[in-house]
Amino acid sequence: MLVVMQAHASEDQIRAVCQKIESLGYRAHPIPGAERTAIGITGNQGEVEPGTLEEMAGVQEVIRVTKPYKLVSRDIKEDNTVIRFPGSTATIGGSALAVMAGPCAIESREQAFAVAERVARAGAQFFRGGAYKPRTSPYSFQGLGEDGLRILAEIRDQFGMRIVTEAIDHESLELVEDYADIIQIGARNMQNFSLLRRAGRSRKPVMVKRGMAATLEELLMAAEYVMSEGNYSVILCERGVRTFADHTRNTLDLSIVPAVQRLSHLPVLVDPSHGTGKRNKVTPLSRAAVAVGADGLLVEVHHQPDKALSDGVQSLYPDQFDELMAQVRQIAPVVGRTIPPIGSDPPLEPAITPRSKVRTSAPSLS
Amino acid sequence: MLVVMQAHASEDQIRAVCQKIESLGYRAHPIPGAERTAIGITGNQGEVEPGTLEEMAGVQEVIRVTKPYKLVSRDIKEDNTVIRFPGSTATIGGSALAVMAGPCAIESREQAFAVAERVARAGAQFFRGGAYKPRTSPYSFQGLGEDGLRILAEIRDQFGMRIVTEAIDHESLELVEDYADIIQIGARNMQNFSLLRRAGRSRKPVMVKRGMAATLEELLMAAEYVMSEGNYSVILCERGVRTFADHTRNTLDLSIVPAVQRLSHLPVLVDPSHGTGKRNKVTPLSRAAVAVGADGLLVEVHHQPDKALSDGVQSLYPDQFDELMAQVRQIAPVVGRTIPPIGSDPPLEPAITPRSKVRTSAPSLS
Amino acid sequence: MLVVMQAHASEDQIRAVCQKIESLGYRAHPIPGAERTAIGITGNQGEVEPGTLEEMAGVQEVIRVTKPYKLVSRDIKEDNTVIRFPGSTATIGGSALAVMAGPCAIESREQAFAVAERVARAGAQFFRGGAYKPRTSPYSFQGLGEDGLRILAEIRDQFGMRIVTEAIDHESLELVEDYADIIQIGARNMQNFSLLRRAGRSRKPVMVKRGMAATLEELLMAAEYVMSEGNYSVILCERGVRTFADHTRNTLDLSIVPAVQRLSHLPVLVDPSHGTGKRNKVTPLSRAAVAVGADGLLVEVHHQPDKALSDGVQSLYPDQFDELMAQVRQIAPVVGRTIPPIGSDPPLEPAITPRSKVRTSAPSLS
Amino acid sequence: MLVVMQAHASEDQIRAVCQKIESLGYRAHPIPGAERTAIGITGNQGEVEPGTLEEMAGVQEVIRVTKPYKLVSRDIKEDNTVIRFPGSTATIGGSALAVMAGPCAIESREQAFAVAERVARAGAQFFRGGAYKPRTSPYSFQGLGEDGLRILAEIRDQFGMRIVTEAIDHESLELVEDYADIIQIGARNMQNFSLLRRAGRSRKPVMVKRGMAATLEELLMAAEYVMSEGNYSVILCERGVRTFADHTRNTLDLSIVPAVQRLSHLPVLVDPSHGTGKRNKVTPLSRAAVAVGADGLLVEVHHQPDKALSDGVQSLYPDQFDELMAQVRQIAPVVGRTIPPIGSDPPLEPAITPRSKVRTSAPSLS
Repeated sequence: MLVVMQAHASEDQIRAVCQKIESLGYRAHPIPGAERTAIGITGNQGEVEPGTLEEMAGVQEVIRVTKPYKLVSRDIKEDNTVIRFPGSTATIGGSALAVMAGPCAIESREQAFAVAERVARAGAQFFRGGAYKPRTSPYSFQGLGEDGLRILAEIRDQFGMRIVTEAIDHESLELVEDYADIIQIGARNMQNFSLLRRAGRSRKPVMVKRGMAATLEELLMAAEYVMSEGNYSVILCERGVRTFADHTRNTLDLSIVPAVQRLSHLPVLVDPSHGTGKRNKVTPLSRAAVAVGADGLLVEVHHQPDKALSDGVQSLYPDQFDELMAQVRQIAPVVGRTIPPIGSDPPLEPAITPRSKVRTSAPSLS
Repeated sequence: MLVVMQAHASEDQIRAVCQKIESLGYRAHPIPGAERTAIGITGNQGEVEPGTLEEMAGVQEVIRVTKPYKLVSRDIKEDNTVIRFPGSTATIGGSALAVMAGPCAIESREQAFAVAERVARAGAQFFRGGAYKPRTSPYSFQGLGEDGLRILAEIRDQFGMRIVTEAIDHESLELVEDYADIIQIGARNMQNFSLLRRAGRSRKPVMVKRGMAATLEELLMAAEYVMSEGNYSVILCERGVRTFADHTRNTLDLSIVPAVQRLSHLPVLVDPSHGTGKRNKVTPLSRAAVAVGADGLLVEVHHQPDKALSDGVQSLYPDQFDELMAQVRQIAPVVGRTIPPIGSDPPLEPAITPRSKVRTSAPSLS
Repeated sequence: MLVVMQAHASEDQIRAVCQKIESLGYRAHPIPGAERTAIGITGNQGEVEPGTLEEMAGVQEVIRVTKPYKLVSRDIKEDNTVIRFPGSTATIGGSALAVMAGPCAIESREQAFAVAERVARAGAQFFRGGAYKPRTSPYSFQGLGEDGLRILAEIRDQFGMRIVTEAIDHESLELVEDYADIIQIGARNMQNFSLLRRAGRSRKPVMVKRGMAATLEELLMAAEYVMSEGNYSVILCERGVRTFADHTRNTLDLSIVPAVQRLSHLPVLVDPSHGTGKRNKVTPLSRAAVAVGADGLLVEVHHQPDKALSDGVQSLYPDQFDELMAQVRQIAPVVGRTIPPIGSDPPLEPAITPRSKVRTSAPSLS
Repeated sequence: MLVVMQAHASEDQIRAVCQKIESLGYRAHPIPGAERTAIGITGNQGEVEPGTLEEMAGVQEVIRVTKPYKLVSRDIKEDNTVIRFPGSTATIGGSALAVMAGPCAIESREQAFAVAERVARAGAQFFRGGAYKPRTSPYSFQGLGEDGLRILAEIRDQFGMRIVTEAIDHESLELVEDYADIIQIGARNMQNFSLLRRAGRSRKPVMVKRGMAATLEELLMAAEYVMSEGNYSVILCERGVRTFADHTRNTLDLSIVPAVQRLSHLPVLVDPSHGTGKRNKVTPLSRAAVAVGADGLLVEVHHQPDKALSDGVQSLYPDQFDELMAQVRQIAPVVGRTIPPIGSDPPLEPAITPRSKVRTSAPSLS
């Protein structure tokens, strides 16, 4: 159920409608748009009686939303969600292409800094790297944990990049939200609804990666789980689905980008590294992802891929990433995207770890 | 790495090898078989030097296990794992077919008892029903939580059936292991490695359902996660995979049953309810599952499917379940299976809830 | 569009309706059922005006068929189609299970006879073997062509089995319909509509194998192509579909058997040899296919699988086929099926090749 | 088996090696490259003894080709195959992007000309349109047949575009090769090996579309079938594969473009119309296809999509195609592609139908 307010509805009117909804035992989600505010209604107990609300001051109409998703839908918020980060020019969902790069896993301070230095110089505004790794085998390297997060926080201080890293359970999420700027929910946890709810109670933006067998609707519903808890800063990410095709590790489904953009106001990125699993396919598919209209890229880069503790075979060499950025810079304008000039986010002044935490205040949303 | 002990190796010799392994910084998993004991070695730090162990008393050979799974493998344990339950004749993995039946979700005491009475009478030795439901939509019925678990415990007391129910996160797992006899890990959490590890630290058997896009190896690796933490009572369950085929909700892949049995000593069940998503397909596919050689069935039954809060469309009516059991009883002997006569587990004497917990002692393993 | 005649409608009335339909520029397909006759209307030019027909003598009702398939549908023919063969007790679609066995390809007279002798003795009433092989590589063995067909005809004479073999184009179909009893359209040609139409103009029954990515509806539409040309003796065959699963060559989708039987009157067989691609999975999945209710099996048997020119890895040894038949004989009665006793079709008296052709008259349909 | 000739090998030496190969009962396929000539050897009868050839004059080495494909491989021909058309500047596989546009089916002269006029004006050098339509239903519009081909020939005369149209069997292929410039083998016939062989005996270039469940290797082997008969002008085309994803009709697998280009010298196009099945996805995915590096596009355009007899829902309006071309023109240079200026192929002088046939001489290959 969705209450669409009149264009000139006052703050008081909006507040009154929200209070009414809550008094009926539901939850109100006011979502301000460029022209008007809509108020989403969620709650388990069944159907709201629309009559009660339709006659309130400032209400234009009450829409029964038949699609299973509500808060992710363009019906409830027409304008694209743009996620901003305090103290940074970086955005996700706006006209600038969001480029996230870094190693699959943080292996050591040296490795992380070596890669960070190169991807920052090439123009990435976001640094990605796993501290908690969901691995198929219990005997594989599982990540450095909080030590990895500390290294990531240092990289933010040093290079001014925003940090995105994965949380795999409630415990790691507590730490990730302290240290990082974006909480990543991996493909294998896309329907770990308990984790999605927990991420929904965080102040930090959440990036949800598409599960290997997830339909578009299931991907949107995963985002809906996060939003239903009150966190509206959600980013979607296509990373390949599982098919019979064996020339790539997964089959990258770029058509989901325009499909998401049609139905939802949320930004959607593409990860050609996991999406192909092969280094020589990452650059062509990155170009394609930008050309199809994605809001950004997630690319694995490693300075010594052959020594990587995970996913080395799909990581670009830094020189290849430079080349990728050069190509992407040419395609972006064709689809109306900009890429911020290199160095637009100057390194923050050095900070000790506790301050890293303090500094990562909640992002603002437009 | 696997240490195979000689057939006549003494308890002391086995203990000494385990201590040596642990002193090297690894973890030892002694697994007694009908003829000899094998000791699995797990640990993150790399390769063990086999020489150290090969010369110890009672050791027959040290095998480098090249497959990524170790503890689940028949290489490490030739005989089928048979899971037994204190105070019950029910087994899983032995010659008796394990039939688990019940509603998708526990909706109320009345509903649960109505279904339980019928499936117990038809010969099911296990009662299934969700107290925590992973639902695609955050707005759908999410289960009764601990209230549902209490109802399940009462059903065990009343009807003598063992209880299987799903845990969706660490918090619910704590409760499920208190109340239930088998902890179910759902398809959507098959690669929630944090949850698998936690289940591996439980004393209760764990049933891992195959993920919608999981390969055989990934399914075995999920079981390996549980076993690597020391819990060897693991049951696998095929429940359909995602394909292009649209005449059923999922495509039930019965060929995985002989494939699992070839590679692993763990029991493997089939869930034709989720595997087809259509009531009229459940009985034919249940027959097929028994004929293919599955160790048991997981079947949804509801006394009023049209009023079910979830998955009603795939739940059998109690009369249909009677008929299914009648057919299955005829096919089981062809594949060397028995079905215990009805009433072989008499109802336990009534017990108050706290005692329900006490009574569910850890199962024994053979 | 479907005209359902009254139960007591006379032959003259039926004929009159057919003539009316044809005079309107459509094609009439009278299909006699146990209780009443239905007349299917097909044609490209659009919608028939039902009024014209509804008022004719003997017409009960005119049904607009909204599903894209008509002639394959149970709407048009309620009773199962049973295909009979002149001079043989073998049937397909009746209560008897149809077992088709033989090598993937006819390699030589010696090989074919060696296998035929064993599968006939084990109780197969149909002999299968390819004379024209659709091979992925142009450099692989492509079959013996007409020489292979001659060998097959000899096997019919010698052992009394009916012959099923694949046609791959119009040219081979001409020959296959001369020599064989059933024309097989392979999975790769399931949407070779030109070939389907040509098969529809043959007097011999046609077995259509499901394409590797075919939905249920597409499979039924392939049969519809054959029937739309006037050949109503069509057999469907599930042989595995392509998915991400890698423990078998294809994923055998047994749920399509009850799905076909619900919608269509046509018989449906299962081919567990191609469906799994692994010898050790053929017997378990054959048991499952019978238990799920299939009308028959298609099984590859080779007396020297390791020397087979194609698909040896999935062919059973004759002894394994004996064992398979023994198991299948036990399961068949549970699903109301019989297996004809061995030797129920005595060998025909020896015949020279030309007579083989003459003898294979068109089958009758009930 | 592949004979690599020395860089300076004479014509006589090449001819002698070919004769030797043929005298051994095999087939020789001399394939001239920029630096040297290679000679492929094909034939069913087994392995060639390399010794015989290795010592001949001008031979550098004899390579056993272990991959199942030979003639399609870059091992045998390092340089890209570029297909040229007599009397036209259009090429496929060179630096110019090949754009093929037109309606799904030729419905009438008026419709075909209306569309042709617009796509020619927008810059397409190839006109596509079906005269023989493989339709899932036997009752759907099946194409105009030879009448459609005549219309296509007129369009070539009028607008100077080269014609690509589908052949569905031997009979239609005879006609298609008379009237058209490129013979299309549709996805459903990708493993109709009899048709592929027949196309291999044509002088006209053949475009093979990827089957809905075809692996990369199977696609290459389909091309190998054509080439093994002596026709080296083969074009591959990705048109989406079948997966569980339901937001598009098929899942367009753009990663196959760099994968093909790595293994094969053949050009590879992308068909985003069938690949998505939705008009609003065609332009974004066309941009992506060019960005990934495809050699061209196949796009459905209809002047009245809502009245189209087939696939209207995925056909662009002419104005949308103009916009697509404008976008594609901007992306092409980033990947080193050119798009020929509009009007670079002036209309041929009017010709009567018989001359249309005469004029379409065989293309040259580089």
